[in-house]
Amino acid sequence: MFITFEGPEGAGKSTQLARLVARLTAAGLAPTVTREPGGTPLGTRVREVLLDPELDMHALPEFLLYSASRAQLVQDVLRPALSRGEVVVCDRYFDSSLAYQGAGRGLPLALLQGITHEVTGGLRPNLTVLLDLDPALGLQRAAARGQPDRLERADLAFHQRVRQGFLELAAQEPQRFVVLDATKTPDELEAEVWAAVERALKVSGA
Amino acid sequence: MFITFEGPEGAGKSTQLARLVARLTAAGLAPTVTREPGGTPLGTRVREVLLDPELDMHALPEFLLYSASRAQLVQDVLRPALSRGEVVVCDRYFDSSLAYQGAGRGLPLALLQGITHEVTGGLRPNLTVLLDLDPALGLQRAAARGQPDRLERADLAFHQRVRQGFLELAAQEPQRFVVLDATKTPDELEAEVWAAVERALKVSGA
Repeated sequence: MFITFEGPEGAGKSTQLARLVARLTAAGLAPTVTREPGGTPLGTRVREVLLDPELDMHALPEFLLYSASRAQLVQDVLRPALSRGEVVVCDRYFDSSLAYQGAGRGLPLALLQGITHEVTGGLRPNLTVLLDLDPALGLQRAAARGQPDRLERADLAFHQRVRQGFLELAAQEPQRFVVLDATKTPDELEAEVWAAVERALKVSGA
Repeated sequence: MFITFEGPEGAGKSTQLARLVARLTAAGLAPTVTREPGGTPLGTRVREVLLDPELDMHALPEFLLYSASRAQLVQDVLRPALSRGEVVVCDRYFDSSLAYQGAGRGLPLALLQGITHEVTGGLRPNLTVLLDLDPALGLQRAAARGQPDRLERADLAFHQRVRQGFLELAAQEPQRFVVLDATKTPDELEAEVWAAVERALKVSGA
């Protein structure tokens, strides 16, 4: 069972991910928890490069850096944990690349999907929780937490394209995605996430 | 006119590249000189990650990191210089990825070539100087210069596959490659490089 969280900064991904992990742990499921970019020593180094506000990069190298972190994560963390039968919870995965570098920055989706298929070896989440939020609100929330990083500083139109990108991905795979309204309270969202995870666990027979 | 230097560490690439640049400059051609990985602020950061001897990485993320550096270099350095009509000299380019991550580490060549075509937008060198050297000799020379980096520490069999990879690439494109015996003296090699560049400049009408 492979669960990913997606959505903009400020939507409450980290909070909801932590609450889900607490529930899974309470249910005796000992999940593996990781994130993108990062999750491995290589991914952590790549993350520093990606989030550096001083560094200019074009969309394609940006996508390739995310893909490098992802390829290492798939091989060293995701596949080993899944083949041990663990529940894996990941903060962002390839949908973020499709939304940010595809819909957001305009790289062709077919190119991104083709490379992503090689990078992941076809490993897709069983369940993707999309925390959907008006970008203006998300950026406000993120800014309240401190200095914006490179991606948070991009303009509002970019973040609106990213949101639409996420929503289109969700519409194309309704069986994989659950789309939640991130303006709800953390408690409401926690309950909705847990309901979706319980349904998915039942389907997967775990 | 786009010229690349390829070959193992210790083959004298840097020396020959510097001598060619001196000759081009003396001929009034003001070349743009760059290298991979590196050549841009992003590439320099990616280079540090790639050469870090402490960092483990699989072949695919390694290739994607080189590709990220390359994509930025193509857009920010190579294409602008070439469209200004300059001679561009680059220390390593995609042939290194095909030889090291393909022949050396066993990633499928078709996969690497497909992604490389997207990364470079099809930009290929007019002339590639391959300094060919027995890997045992090259590693000796590189070791004499100090602590080996991550790639130099790989085993001899790996470096032998890389050498064969380079030679096969050269055999497939004899009109692009000139293969030189790197055991010759620096002066002999300089003369052979210059002869190849003069021929290529004549063909290109520069």
